[in-house]
Amino acid sequence: MKLWDKGFSTDKKIDIFTVGSDRELDLVIAKYDVLASIAHAKMLHKIGLITEKEAINLVKELENIGETVKNGTFSIDDNFEDAHSKIEFLLTEKLGDTGKRIHTARSRNDQVLVAVNLYLKAELEQIKNNTKELFDVLMDLAETHKKTLLPGYTHLQIAMPSSFGLWFSAYAESLIDDLYFIDAAHKIVDQNPLGSAAGYGSSFPIDRDFTTKELAFETLKYNVVAAQMSRGKSEKSTAFGLSSIAATLSKMSMDICLYMSQNFDFITFPDELTTGSSIMPHKKNPDVFELIRGKCNKIQAVPNQLAMLTTNLPSGYHRDLQLTKEIIVPAIQELKSCLEMLTFSIKNIIVKENILDDKKYDYLFSVDTLNDLVLNGMPFRDAYKQMGEEIQRGEFTPKKDISHSHKGSLGNLCLDEIKAKMEKLF
Amino acid sequence: MKLWDKGFSTDKKIDIFTVGSDRELDLVIAKYDVLASIAHAKMLHKIGLITEKEAINLVKELENIGETVKNGTFSIDDNFEDAHSKIEFLLTEKLGDTGKRIHTARSRNDQVLVAVNLYLKAELEQIKNNTKELFDVLMDLAETHKKTLLPGYTHLQIAMPSSFGLWFSAYAESLIDDLYFIDAAHKIVDQNPLGSAAGYGSSFPIDRDFTTKELAFETLKYNVVAAQMSRGKSEKSTAFGLSSIAATLSKMSMDICLYMSQNFDFITFPDELTTGSSIMPHKKNPDVFELIRGKCNKIQAVPNQLAMLTTNLPSGYHRDLQLTKEIIVPAIQELKSCLEMLTFSIKNIIVKENILDDKKYDYLFSVDTLNDLVLNGMPFRDAYKQMGEEIQRGEFTPKKDISHSHKGSLGNLCLDEIKAKMEKLF
Amino acid sequence: MKLWDKGFSTDKKIDIFTVGSDRELDLVIAKYDVLASIAHAKMLHKIGLITEKEAINLVKELENIGETVKNGTFSIDDNFEDAHSKIEFLLTEKLGDTGKRIHTARSRNDQVLVAVNLYLKAELEQIKNNTKELFDVLMDLAETHKKTLLPGYTHLQIAMPSSFGLWFSAYAESLIDDLYFIDAAHKIVDQNPLGSAAGYGSSFPIDRDFTTKELAFETLKYNVVAAQMSRGKSEKSTAFGLSSIAATLSKMSMDICLYMSQNFDFITFPDELTTGSSIMPHKKNPDVFELIRGKCNKIQAVPNQLAMLTTNLPSGYHRDLQLTKEIIVPAIQELKSCLEMLTFSIKNIIVKENILDDKKYDYLFSVDTLNDLVLNGMPFRDAYKQMGEEIQRGEFTPKKDISHSHKGSLGNLCLDEIKAKMEKLF
Amino acid sequence: MKLWDKGFSTDKKIDIFTVGSDRELDLVIAKYDVLASIAHAKMLHKIGLITEKEAINLVKELENIGETVKNGTFSIDDNFEDAHSKIEFLLTEKLGDTGKRIHTARSRNDQVLVAVNLYLKAELEQIKNNTKELFDVLMDLAETHKKTLLPGYTHLQIAMPSSFGLWFSAYAESLIDDLYFIDAAHKIVDQNPLGSAAGYGSSFPIDRDFTTKELAFETLKYNVVAAQMSRGKSEKSTAFGLSSIAATLSKMSMDICLYMSQNFDFITFPDELTTGSSIMPHKKNPDVFELIRGKCNKIQAVPNQLAMLTTNLPSGYHRDLQLTKEIIVPAIQELKSCLEMLTFSIKNIIVKENILDDKKYDYLFSVDTLNDLVLNGMPFRDAYKQMGEEIQRGEFTPKKDISHSHKGSLGNLCLDEIKAKMEKLF
Repeated sequence: MKLWDKGFSTDKKIDIFTVGSDRELDLVIAKYDVLASIAHAKMLHKIGLITEKEAINLVKELENIGETVKNGTFSIDDNFEDAHSKIEFLLTEKLGDTGKRIHTARSRNDQVLVAVNLYLKAELEQIKNNTKELFDVLMDLAETHKKTLLPGYTHLQIAMPSSFGLWFSAYAESLIDDLYFIDAAHKIVDQNPLGSAAGYGSSFPIDRDFTTKELAFETLKYNVVAAQMSRGKSEKSTAFGLSSIAATLSKMSMDICLYMSQNFDFITFPDELTTGSSIMPHKKNPDVFELIRGKCNKIQAVPNQLAMLTTNLPSGYHRDLQLTKEIIVPAIQELKSCLEMLTFSIKNIIVKENILDDKKYDYLFSVDTLNDLVLNGMPFRDAYKQMGEEIQRGEFTPKKDISHSHKGSLGNLCLDEIKAKMEKLF
Repeated sequence: MKLWDKGFSTDKKIDIFTVGSDRELDLVIAKYDVLASIAHAKMLHKIGLITEKEAINLVKELENIGETVKNGTFSIDDNFEDAHSKIEFLLTEKLGDTGKRIHTARSRNDQVLVAVNLYLKAELEQIKNNTKELFDVLMDLAETHKKTLLPGYTHLQIAMPSSFGLWFSAYAESLIDDLYFIDAAHKIVDQNPLGSAAGYGSSFPIDRDFTTKELAFETLKYNVVAAQMSRGKSEKSTAFGLSSIAATLSKMSMDICLYMSQNFDFITFPDELTTGSSIMPHKKNPDVFELIRGKCNKIQAVPNQLAMLTTNLPSGYHRDLQLTKEIIVPAIQELKSCLEMLTFSIKNIIVKENILDDKKYDYLFSVDTLNDLVLNGMPFRDAYKQMGEEIQRGEFTPKKDISHSHKGSLGNLCLDEIKAKMEKLF
Repeated sequence: MKLWDKGFSTDKKIDIFTVGSDRELDLVIAKYDVLASIAHAKMLHKIGLITEKEAINLVKELENIGETVKNGTFSIDDNFEDAHSKIEFLLTEKLGDTGKRIHTARSRNDQVLVAVNLYLKAELEQIKNNTKELFDVLMDLAETHKKTLLPGYTHLQIAMPSSFGLWFSAYAESLIDDLYFIDAAHKIVDQNPLGSAAGYGSSFPIDRDFTTKELAFETLKYNVVAAQMSRGKSEKSTAFGLSSIAATLSKMSMDICLYMSQNFDFITFPDELTTGSSIMPHKKNPDVFELIRGKCNKIQAVPNQLAMLTTNLPSGYHRDLQLTKEIIVPAIQELKSCLEMLTFSIKNIIVKENILDDKKYDYLFSVDTLNDLVLNGMPFRDAYKQMGEEIQRGEFTPKKDISHSHKGSLGNLCLDEIKAKMEKLF
Repeated sequence: MKLWDKGFSTDKKIDIFTVGSDRELDLVIAKYDVLASIAHAKMLHKIGLITEKEAINLVKELENIGETVKNGTFSIDDNFEDAHSKIEFLLTEKLGDTGKRIHTARSRNDQVLVAVNLYLKAELEQIKNNTKELFDVLMDLAETHKKTLLPGYTHLQIAMPSSFGLWFSAYAESLIDDLYFIDAAHKIVDQNPLGSAAGYGSSFPIDRDFTTKELAFETLKYNVVAAQMSRGKSEKSTAFGLSSIAATLSKMSMDICLYMSQNFDFITFPDELTTGSSIMPHKKNPDVFELIRGKCNKIQAVPNQLAMLTTNLPSGYHRDLQLTKEIIVPAIQELKSCLEMLTFSIKNIIVKENILDDKKYDYLFSVDTLNDLVLNGMPFRDAYKQMGEEIQRGEFTPKKDISHSHKGSLGNLCLDEIKAKMEKLF
């Protein structure tokens, strides 16, 4: 049973090719189609296109379907091309003509648009919360390890003293920036496209304000052509947000993999979080973090996948847009699992103490010595030259009792200020 | 004169390779280095690292340099690697030791970071304003042409009636979404990184709140490691914003190129905005719009260029990050020129009237006829079948006096509501 | 049962996270692991590490497993992380200690490398053959429709006469170029990595020439570090090939979608290959071609996905590389289905005759008229001006009996020469 | 003087927007336009469209222009839009009507196509040679340092013994694979598009075989529509080749930056090839290698830039394609400079001896010990367990006199076999 069937037989192969992975992906979309259909049914009654009884029956039946989605018994068998046709079939099976009326004054296009927007909105909120959880864990770790020093590198060369306090809270503060993009994406999907029909509206006197309120959208995507053009754009906007977080997680994972190498040996993790190797029995491989890094780098490629898919398509719906789902849904699921896994793992980090006792880190302290000269009045460039000569003559001894006091420095992490910045987003 | 010169001779070829296009690119950055240096000088005096007289001299001299940047006489000759070293040279030439003191308590890293952030912030504001101008023009055009009908397509097949009012204001409303990303990027760069030095802060008692206020940053990027990590990320965040606008302009240009084709023939432009061909004397080629499309598609590839450049670099500065400038600066300039060019060109659009009189567009009206049946009580699916049969028997006559009244439809464009949405961003 | 299990309990969640979709993907890899394991077993016997009886038993058992893979009864249950561990388990279950010996002198790394190379090699050959099939169909269509004229466009403006002969064979000749990349990728994967162990070789006196011959590889990837570095690179190389074909299919699909639009109306397809719409009963939507376009544009993004995944990873294995499989395997399957679908569909194309009778195409012939003037001795630029004036005065009449005779022109398609070029690749 | 000027005034701003950076970029293309124009002039005479005297004059004058290109005095002033119009102007200035005749039977489109193909062909050959030079240097270094051991890593964990011999020659052998793509791209551009005119051929009886031979193209791109479609595709094909080499250089640079870190300390370079830091006087920063890495990662993004620019453009010329030049030309120049710089720098590498004396590398030898047990008859999995227990009890002593003898292992680098593989490409 396909809606576009005009009575001609259709080759099975074409069916497989055109339906793709929609049946599987739509299991996450079904919930939102139910919600949107309920709002649509109520609206149809409000403007007099269906009777109160019809509306009540539709809503009740949709709620029943919603229950099956929730408890996992909803399924999309091979004779349906997606969640939407299955749900409509169920309604018609139960309610006859009333069931068919749910499709009045809407098109498959805006039906998908509204369900996808609701889905993306919910997931962006979930991701925001997951990110906040990771933020909290990192901030706690920064507090716990604020006094443990770590070499700071530039060009991968030993440069200046850093600390685990700085390192953990750097990634925390960085996540706040990522949430600005999550919020921007949220704003974009928090607009009601329902009523745009096939992208050009309809002659029915539909009440779009009503469904907007009913579905708790912030506002309407007013222009029906703009609503249609948001297909692909909503997904790409979401992907910008995902990609931003992913870049932060990937970078932190790269640091972790490096710091776990025996050549750095700054941190380790319990055996449960590492793996051995089939022929090198002494190793503790950071597979979890390598996979977070790899998965997040894949996620960083998602905006480009969507851009490639949508670029140079003129306005109006094209079937290509169906493929956005199979790009964005797995990316969302993958990022959520990376967030969860990093939050879970990082709590178990084991931080090494006294790293800077190793003589190779002595030069870390050269800059502070230089600054002492400057604080005593020597122009920077002259002090710089004097230090350079001392070091070349091998006469440099580190003064390890460093004190950095300015805002954001290792002696003054400003964790409260950073938390306050994050709080503003909630 | 290179700051890192330790007295060893350096091969000229390496110099060319490492300096790259910095001298040219830094002409747009110089202005912001001057501003940040002024704030830094004042701060150095405030915390007692330089005298009032030194501060006054530095500020005065920096203002003089700022004047040369403004009037175009500032230049970066081959013996300087960038704007920063040239400015420092000028200060030292004029003020001797005082000039050298400007570099106290900062590093090249945070000096570049703060200048780039100020630059990006200013450009994002400019782009936002340029986008608003285009929005205004499109909204005016929507109002002017709100009654002129246009075929609406799905799958590039003739589908339903649309209008120039819908078409123009669809792109306008779409631009609002793009600005959410511009605003998110703006938030990210509107944080003061000055004071992070080489990425690990310093032992000087610098007052970062003072420079934050002085430079009108909304807040600090507190954590010094986070500040350093913003290099590349600020540029990528900006690129997400650029890319979002670029996608909208590219899509509109694709529509324009299509609509100018003799096979559509919906619009045209004055000869000044089109070009002919060396061997086909009758053509009006939409070169301007093809170039907007092409340039904007290139801009859409910028986030990925920056991701490729920065991915899997561990935390801390790497010289690779210098290359972000040569990616983001031209992209910003290109997008601004595309915005300007589209705003200028679209004003001159010539919209054809009576397009829908052509018989091939008759089927556009089938849906409205269908809806009439539904409004008269027939279930949608049944009405759909009846119409299909009528059309197959060749018995369908279009009823062209369509009336769409719901919000966002061609009879009710909601231009004021869309404008109100835009206003919220200013 | 995981090979790296050191006796510590491992959280189920981590297991799901780390195994990912390997169990599903490895069903296509299993066949090649069996082949490589057979070669490895024979080699182990040749160099005396296992007895003849052990080798015979291993080979027999591996062939049995190979049968289950072939007939679809092979499966990878949840207690195995991939095909490799399942196969090893089956061998040990049947053969005890002999089963365990299969892993002598190899590592999971080179075991995966060799299986993936064999897989990619087979698929590249398949894709090459599929491409050749499409080529043949297009060449036949070019021959059939060689006299049917079509407008040729530049800038989407009507430009010069073209023909279906030109159009079909243009895509055919273009596919030849794509195969140069398929061949390059094939050369890269046609090198034996087996014996590189974990990427640094081993102290066993293995005979890599023997397995190279046994597995019909063209040559060895000699250097064991280079062999390891080919992970990710083989996949990216393959992706370049896929991407190249995909770009050609996508472009042809774009043409098809455009030419099916009522505004062009150059071609159509039987109903079985088009779809209708839920509210616009008169349409014939080119869903199949839109999906080929969309899927191929997704495939064009694959090289970048792999680049993002692998960039800036230092040499040596990283777990990130496991994720290459979930990128390349679906891309290969998708491209094959697009090739099949386009080959199947294009055979059914219905080409419209007499397209150029429409008056709007009259100017197509202006260039030929211009050339007549030139052939009669007028300098090109002067003839160009004269024609321009004629057209502006409305005095231009098209001379439609065009004759293009040079190689590759519409009157001289050179189909045999193009076929000869293709033949060289087989 | 623009060819498409129909006598209407054109706004200066539009001129800047549409010409872009063509004047600068075309300085590298001019040489090839001259060559192609000479061949075209000779062909015009051969088929009787111009007299022998005209041909001789055109060739002589074009050779003169070619001289100015060679000695750097050729320039493209602001009143020409590109090299092609400037060259035609010069011809007409000198030769009057004869000069104008050069444009007979060709269009700007095929004129650009043929010049770009000749340019890409020459550059691909140059890059192949540059790559071979780097290969030779790496192979020499492998020979020189074949006995110097190095830790081999997997997961960035210390894994097994490697050697500088392996490391250098791994990158060398890897470069051979990259050249397969350079060769594939070369095949694609080594086809003559001249004669395709605006993409649909012409009514002139041109002799395309003649120009093919004259310009030393391997074959014709026969189909004129295919020839036109090669615009963008030739550049993208070239970019696949560039990208492949770039990935190898980038990876090697990442290794170098890591190995120069004090935490690895495996290699160093003379001061001329490193840089210091303004506030950390003891450092040796690997700027050159970071820039090679960064530039090469940018180059890896080039195929995607070109895909974004060209995707979903229907067949036929579009002005967007002009922008391919500003993407591919700098990428070619950048890759050549990276190849040169790496070849130059790597020769000066200083390799540390006795790295493996450090106790932390003892476990590197555990696998060889394990293999000894296996060679003495213990099944691999059992030996693996026994070793694991020894290590956990702290009873493991490394046996450092390793001997790897199989092909491609550290004791048997197969440098001659690798060189032979490379030789096949020349």
